[in-house]
Amino acid sequence: MSPEEFRQFGHQLIDWISDFHAGAGARPVMAAVAPGAVKALLPKEAPIEPEPMDVVLRDFAAIVPPGLTDWQNPRFFGYFPSNALPAGMLGDMLATGLGVLGLTWQSSPAVTEIEEVVTDWVRRMVGLSDEWSGVIQDTASTNTLVALLCAREVATNYGLARGGLQGYGRPLSIYLSAHSHSSVEKAALLAGFGRENLRFVPLDETYAMRADAFEALVAADLARGIQPCALVATIGTTATTAVDPLAALAPITARANMWLHVDAAMGGSAMILPECRPLWQGIESANSLVINAHKWLGAPFDCSLYYVREPEQLVRVMSTNPSFLQSSVDGQVKNLRDWGIPLGRRFRALKLWFMIREQGVAGLQARLRRDIANARHLADLVRAAPGWEVLAPVAFQTVCIRHNPGLAGEALDRHTLAWVEKINRSGAAYLTPAVLDGRWMVRISVGALTTEVHHVEQAWQAIRAAAESVAARI
Amino acid sequence: MSPEEFRQFGHQLIDWISDFHAGAGARPVMAAVAPGAVKALLPKEAPIEPEPMDVVLRDFAAIVPPGLTDWQNPRFFGYFPSNALPAGMLGDMLATGLGVLGLTWQSSPAVTEIEEVVTDWVRRMVGLSDEWSGVIQDTASTNTLVALLCAREVATNYGLARGGLQGYGRPLSIYLSAHSHSSVEKAALLAGFGRENLRFVPLDETYAMRADAFEALVAADLARGIQPCALVATIGTTATTAVDPLAALAPITARANMWLHVDAAMGGSAMILPECRPLWQGIESANSLVINAHKWLGAPFDCSLYYVREPEQLVRVMSTNPSFLQSSVDGQVKNLRDWGIPLGRRFRALKLWFMIREQGVAGLQARLRRDIANARHLADLVRAAPGWEVLAPVAFQTVCIRHNPGLAGEALDRHTLAWVEKINRSGAAYLTPAVLDGRWMVRISVGALTTEVHHVEQAWQAIRAAAESVAARI
Repeated sequence: MSPEEFRQFGHQLIDWISDFHAGAGARPVMAAVAPGAVKALLPKEAPIEPEPMDVVLRDFAAIVPPGLTDWQNPRFFGYFPSNALPAGMLGDMLATGLGVLGLTWQSSPAVTEIEEVVTDWVRRMVGLSDEWSGVIQDTASTNTLVALLCAREVATNYGLARGGLQGYGRPLSIYLSAHSHSSVEKAALLAGFGRENLRFVPLDETYAMRADAFEALVAADLARGIQPCALVATIGTTATTAVDPLAALAPITARANMWLHVDAAMGGSAMILPECRPLWQGIESANSLVINAHKWLGAPFDCSLYYVREPEQLVRVMSTNPSFLQSSVDGQVKNLRDWGIPLGRRFRALKLWFMIREQGVAGLQARLRRDIANARHLADLVRAAPGWEVLAPVAFQTVCIRHNPGLAGEALDRHTLAWVEKINRSGAAYLTPAVLDGRWMVRISVGALTTEVHHVEQAWQAIRAAAESVAARI
Repeated sequence: MSPEEFRQFGHQLIDWISDFHAGAGARPVMAAVAPGAVKALLPKEAPIEPEPMDVVLRDFAAIVPPGLTDWQNPRFFGYFPSNALPAGMLGDMLATGLGVLGLTWQSSPAVTEIEEVVTDWVRRMVGLSDEWSGVIQDTASTNTLVALLCAREVATNYGLARGGLQGYGRPLSIYLSAHSHSSVEKAALLAGFGRENLRFVPLDETYAMRADAFEALVAADLARGIQPCALVATIGTTATTAVDPLAALAPITARANMWLHVDAAMGGSAMILPECRPLWQGIESANSLVINAHKWLGAPFDCSLYYVREPEQLVRVMSTNPSFLQSSVDGQVKNLRDWGIPLGRRFRALKLWFMIREQGVAGLQARLRRDIANARHLADLVRAAPGWEVLAPVAFQTVCIRHNPGLAGEALDRHTLAWVEKINRSGAAYLTPAVLDGRWMVRISVGALTTEVHHVEQAWQAIRAAAESVAARI
């Protein structure tokens, strides 16, 4: 394909994307295809001869959209928002179009230096001190793994240079909670700590860690000769956006010489609002921190920011220096390959640079404030409706609800799953059920880019009608 | 930004990308900017108020291109090729524009199902049996880590469910070679094995592992009560594209009950050519395999394919199943979050689907054959020139050369680094020096999409002139 043909098909594709987003309001949110339906439309083998690009694009348009759940839809209230601001899309598309790779600074200096600048912009935007340095990785799952690997190596005085975790005599333990993201437990297991060495800190009535219970667990480990290695605290848990109390937890990690990693994948975005920052008071005592710019903030996936206070620890764990990556300027530059697991790196900073400039900090703040207000409004509507409950504090933009027409136990679970399935299948809104205190409930995560108050009110009407009609058939 | 404004700026951006690639031949390959020069052009703080998108794009065009080393340039011979076929770029841009996320099958069924189909297309294209299942991850670094984590868990009978690597009594050892990619050693250290438990298999005169030496190392470990855990063999090492002899190594790993991971990040692409497949004879005995479709094959970065023979092992190590990710169809679908480290996943399959169809298998084969012929032609030219040597077999498309005007030791190193720096700074070609047998040499990695035989011949003329003029000044 020549640059001229690329231009022609590129214009077609931009038009298609623009139309796709302009038409979001009219489409069902959840994909309605059956398992295997997309696969069945594709041949089992690759074509031997080239196919015309317009045929490829035509097939795309016929086969793919019905198989997509539409995350950018104003009626998307599932999981957490994964917003893709148009300016960020343009930046990401340009990154693809440039076809350059951040392998070393020299392999494309702008890839490294713009990443340094924009991670520093976000640092200031969320009110962190200049003690922190940032890097962009793919996901919070990866960043939490990186954090626990660093915690392990600092705790063992860099045992990786000797016998690794195999050569360290004293068991290390990791602290999390039952409401930590599933990736925290996964990271701890991948890092080699073992399930027996995970400690689940008991929760208070807001689903936040209890500092006193954490302290007691640490003392119990120490008494048994187990070395407390790291605590992962969360600012905005997945089920209910609960907020672990950093200011109370941090002194305990400091006294026990533990690593404190803060998973602010969701809640970190809110810290661009000064009024939210009391929620992560104590953050300056953490060792590492993850904020997913690809969630509520609006950078197209993937764009997970990892901040550390002592980059030399990170570099000591992640560094490689083969001859083919050395250059004459290595002493004067950052080589971000030594700040994470992969060697090759996309030019992710471009999307963040574009979206922050096009929105301005004020524009991003206004949208997040809108979403918080909409979530509180929704919570008020739910609380006012007979038979409906809001189950957890609305710290940010997610509302956890349940409808109870006088049921208990598994009958209540069946009712909840029935009405949420009805809503999702209707296409009117997309919601994510989850288990809270052993019973299913429904999370309504407000904050898609185009979700306005009337979308929230319409979703609530649809939810109420669906649940109450399901209940009427019991 | 409205969909209409997105359309307008998107068209500008496509035009810019098209012009950028049309003008590649006229640009220097290596970025000429000094350390810190890009950073110095950007403000220290994010703008508070929104900025017009055309100003953002104008700044991009002024600031970024001089800071890019041009990987898509026909005179790029550095590292390994990281090709971005235009059809693949379109697929990747569309993935960004859709803004959907593969968190679970339900979160966008097409993301999972097209990934299943295209990884299976590539499986057939490289001649692997249907015993293999594939998944797309970011990089070979990550995939090698995943492989060693699985090897560790299988060797310990899934110790992660108990005491982890901390609770396993017998030390596990990992086998690699001094010519394995730097990510292999890094992965082994991150997986917790410890440097003391790494075994570097001695090499033969082609820089490939010696099976007899490997067998002796395994026997020595067993005699000392150390459990050989995994061998990482390479098809196309980074320095010289050497090929470890799988057919001779695999029976040894089988007898010792070890995991065999094959790093075919580079050489795997060549297996779409039936005439290259004898190079990885024995591959069907491996447990896991990585092929970087984002290198020579031409998928825009990142697109690293990971194949396993027993996916249930992978899923057992990587699986998480929190309530908020469960759906009513989980028994009937693949949830690829359980096939790797990150939970969130981009729609990477789209670029692979687009590029394979637009090129056809025959189109991809023709290009790779062209590059192999060009590399052999270059090697012939180098061998015929007085004072020049080709230092290693040209297994694929990389030629390792040295010019020796009668120097030895560090004087020879200084000469080599001087002429390669001269070439790179001239912008005429971009080459990567590396150390071989303790002395610097220069790798010429042929295979950018637009590199034709005349580019190779011109690069050789420039190289020869640069080295010989540097030598004349000694």
